[in-house]
Amino acid sequence: MAGSKYAYVRNFELPDPLLPGTFMVFRLDGHSFHRFSDEHGFTKPNDIRALELMDHAAKDLMEQHSDIVLAFGESDEFSFLLRKSAALYNRRQSKIISTLTSQFTSSYVFRWSSYFPDCPLKYPPSFDGRLVLYPSAREIRDYYSWRQTDTHINNLYNTTFWALVQQGGESTTQAHATLKGTVSKQKHEILFSRFQVNYNALDARFRKGSTLVREEISEQSLPTTEELPPTQDLPPSETAAPSPIRMRGRKKPRTTIVVLHCDIIKDDFWDTRPEILSDD
Amino acid sequence: MAGSKYAYVRNFELPDPLLPGTFMVFRLDGHSFHRFSDEHGFTKPNDIRALELMDHAAKDLMEQHSDIVLAFGESDEFSFLLRKSAALYNRRQSKIISTLTSQFTSSYVFRWSSYFPDCPLKYPPSFDGRLVLYPSAREIRDYYSWRQTDTHINNLYNTTFWALVQQGGESTTQAHATLKGTVSKQKHEILFSRFQVNYNALDARFRKGSTLVREEISEQSLPTTEELPPTQDLPPSETAAPSPIRMRGRKKPRTTIVVLHCDIIKDDFWDTRPEILSDD
Amino acid sequence: MAGSKYAYVRNFELPDPLLPGTFMVFRLDGHSFHRFSDEHGFTKPNDIRALELMDHAAKDLMEQHSDIVLAFGESDEFSFLLRKSAALYNRRQSKIISTLTSQFTSSYVFRWSSYFPDCPLKYPPSFDGRLVLYPSAREIRDYYSWRQTDTHINNLYNTTFWALVQQGGESTTQAHATLKGTVSKQKHEILFSRFQVNYNALDARFRKGSTLVREEISEQSLPTTEELPPTQDLPPSETAAPSPIRMRGRKKPRTTIVVLHCDIIKDDFWDTRPEILSDD
Amino acid sequence: MAGSKYAYVRNFELPDPLLPGTFMVFRLDGHSFHRFSDEHGFTKPNDIRALELMDHAAKDLMEQHSDIVLAFGESDEFSFLLRKSAALYNRRQSKIISTLTSQFTSSYVFRWSSYFPDCPLKYPPSFDGRLVLYPSAREIRDYYSWRQTDTHINNLYNTTFWALVQQGGESTTQAHATLKGTVSKQKHEILFSRFQVNYNALDARFRKGSTLVREEISEQSLPTTEELPPTQDLPPSETAAPSPIRMRGRKKPRTTIVVLHCDIIKDDFWDTRPEILSDD
Repeated sequence: MAGSKYAYVRNFELPDPLLPGTFMVFRLDGHSFHRFSDEHGFTKPNDIRALELMDHAAKDLMEQHSDIVLAFGESDEFSFLLRKSAALYNRRQSKIISTLTSQFTSSYVFRWSSYFPDCPLKYPPSFDGRLVLYPSAREIRDYYSWRQTDTHINNLYNTTFWALVQQGGESTTQAHATLKGTVSKQKHEILFSRFQVNYNALDARFRKGSTLVREEISEQSLPTTEELPPTQDLPPSETAAPSPIRMRGRKKPRTTIVVLHCDIIKDDFWDTRPEILSDD
Repeated sequence: MAGSKYAYVRNFELPDPLLPGTFMVFRLDGHSFHRFSDEHGFTKPNDIRALELMDHAAKDLMEQHSDIVLAFGESDEFSFLLRKSAALYNRRQSKIISTLTSQFTSSYVFRWSSYFPDCPLKYPPSFDGRLVLYPSAREIRDYYSWRQTDTHINNLYNTTFWALVQQGGESTTQAHATLKGTVSKQKHEILFSRFQVNYNALDARFRKGSTLVREEISEQSLPTTEELPPTQDLPPSETAAPSPIRMRGRKKPRTTIVVLHCDIIKDDFWDTRPEILSDD
Repeated sequence: MAGSKYAYVRNFELPDPLLPGTFMVFRLDGHSFHRFSDEHGFTKPNDIRALELMDHAAKDLMEQHSDIVLAFGESDEFSFLLRKSAALYNRRQSKIISTLTSQFTSSYVFRWSSYFPDCPLKYPPSFDGRLVLYPSAREIRDYYSWRQTDTHINNLYNTTFWALVQQGGESTTQAHATLKGTVSKQKHEILFSRFQVNYNALDARFRKGSTLVREEISEQSLPTTEELPPTQDLPPSETAAPSPIRMRGRKKPRTTIVVLHCDIIKDDFWDTRPEILSDD
Repeated sequence: MAGSKYAYVRNFELPDPLLPGTFMVFRLDGHSFHRFSDEHGFTKPNDIRALELMDHAAKDLMEQHSDIVLAFGESDEFSFLLRKSAALYNRRQSKIISTLTSQFTSSYVFRWSSYFPDCPLKYPPSFDGRLVLYPSAREIRDYYSWRQTDTHINNLYNTTFWALVQQGGESTTQAHATLKGTVSKQKHEILFSRFQVNYNALDARFRKGSTLVREEISEQSLPTTEELPPTQDLPPSETAAPSPIRMRGRKKPRTTIVVLHCDIIKDDFWDTRPEILSDD
């Protein structure tokens, strides 16, 4: 066949399977989002449109991959947990990283105008992704505790910083100087005494980030969760369906993906959702 | 510091540097593009809007990474060559794969409406990417020969197939049967005798794919190349600039990226562009 | 400094750290030991001198690496378990694989004449080694069950095979034919009815392989274990000592390495030695 | 089949093929050889018995692997070059590293008593090994220049140091102090003026290390090379024989492995042996 004398170049494509039986965390980060948020006039310290757009792109990704059992996002990053037994793309690293990054990016750009109807994209934003393996549930708990602690630290800082600038009339240089060396309690006090802001009463979204999980659909309403626009526009789930063995004789309940803004450091979140860290 | 007791989870992020001194080929492929092209009414056998959109996204990627010295595309795939000495992102594999895939995807969605003004995107398309290392120039030559041979084989088949269907009135099943076992010469004859199509006179874009290279900007016009819409809307190149050592005392000529539809199997293309396979 | 212009070649040495928090199994196999055992007149089906030499080399390796908490051997192979928290050589893969293989090989050759005093080595024997990561205790249990089941299957086959040849007067070809398609029970019957051999009464070493563990030294004797020749001739343990944190305030009991020939498939072995699979 | 329910543990053995079309350098280093040489009374600064034993083990390794086309050793290390097209063990990294390390170690221990007839081994010595890929001939040249430069630097230092101690009556502390900050020329002068030693007249083995290559066997004698004891005792070459395609119609000359002590930094060595860096 024509071309076959060149086909040897495929031998340089080396296999890159990931270790079985481990949890995968896939983390996406916005690429140069400092500049991107400036150019597109994001509200400081938090732009609710931008955060909801991130949530929507994350939800799209979960719709497409049943192996993703949890996602946590803050600012311009999102961390997706793939179940221990996940077999998507035969656990080939490059395939997983590139596909998930592409799908998230594509959703983000595709849905931009729904969240920023008056602000057209000036240029195409991008993300980078990395995949980390964790052998046990303990490390997954600690990973998500690490991210949510980071959310808290960043948001408290940013909230105080922008209050000093926007309401306190300080320059950004002054505001950084004011906050230098302060501990958490002092920032709470600055917010309360100078700006009458009770930090703990702020929107939980900003303080706790966004946590996406699957919940069974029941007759009752789901009052703690938000509605995202429907996503009939997505292609059908493309990840290989669960294996026959796992499904046999088990009627799978219908689920929906919900966005929570709750504590995921304490045990309660995990105790009530044992399926997230299960071995299946 | 708060959160530090969880920070050990970062130890699970393992380094993934690529071997220095090797060429990298980064290949992108459309994900489920058979369905995507159907849903968006792509013209068969070739949709020029879709091909130009691919070219534009590829050009955007080259604008952002001076380490990319060549790109070749056909259908829904593109193969980018990174120079042997490329140091982008310290040659970290996941970072490169995820960033390039994301940037290409983002450009594709961002520019969609310029090429398909009457056909809004129904859902977000995606791509997967892989990175292959090649030690020597010989293998790079053979890699691109392999892709362009593939372009030729596919396009000849598809052109004949769709002539049988669209002009010859055959069903797709019949057309596949008609072509089964035919060699190249027979397909040329079918096209010529039954449909008065001289295959070699068809648009070189379809027969040769798209080859993107950098060319020095001179006073003369560049008659063999096409103009793509300007891309002032892109963020400035983000890859680390060439090292001072390499640049010292060498005035770098201004270059522009051009799209060619030429033979890249024979020596001529490469002999006239020695910088592509150079060791620098 | 002289030579520094060449030192860039070190940049091609890429890092190869193994995922933390996982068990490592290091398995050694004799290289072309079929020929080696023939050339050195090993007794069939089992040569106790050769097995004891393997055990001794394994014990030497455990003496040198406190991270090895278990070893199981049969025939010309040995599987070493490194504790989950093992940090030897910073978990660098090549360093671990090459060093352990070298140390085992060296012990094997060094001690050869103690076990084969009348049979000088005709040529230097060698081993290959591989390292496999397992995320959880369950897989370690199953790994060792796999190996001990293999021991049983091979030994039953070989015992029956060599009885047919040595006592039954069959050629090796005939013996293979006799055994073809037989199940376990039939082999037991051949041994018993034709050769008056009760398989289950054979030396446990042959039926169960060798299991090496550390046991605390107490006043009482250790009647279930064998004595190996003393190894004062080994260099002092070279693996980095346990970290100060792990040791603090814990008086480490003195231990010795013992060789057992017991069942390691059932729970009992593991339940009485919880330290083997512990997270520390 | 019995045991099959455990066989899934093999799925955790991941492939580790090395990039094709690259040179491999396999470097062995003695493990804790400072102590080992003390315990076994090695002559300072160079022990010819120990160096010849290293050479012999290296020669054994080359006998067993026709893919090894060059070896260079100094002190307790050896660097083996595998040809670009080497296919041994399908280029599986762990298999190559562990097997070569084991074979070298085994030869070293096996042949110890031939070189140290009056000094029995006190304990089993060991080596570690690493494998580095190099894409081009230029890097191989520089790699070996790096090693031979290192030989020169170390040997000049050690020769001067031990002259100060053994003949000059300095303590080792004093000798280090004497040499601190000296450049090459000064060391030559110390040797010459104080000890009447012309460094360049010392045995080339010490100054240049040992270089092993294959040479065609001809009628003429090979006056520049040394004879090593014959090695009929080695098992037959076990690496897969050269592929039929490469051999077809080419009568392979008979070769022998010779040990040289020559300059391998300048071009001459390489120009007269083009097969070492060839693409085949």
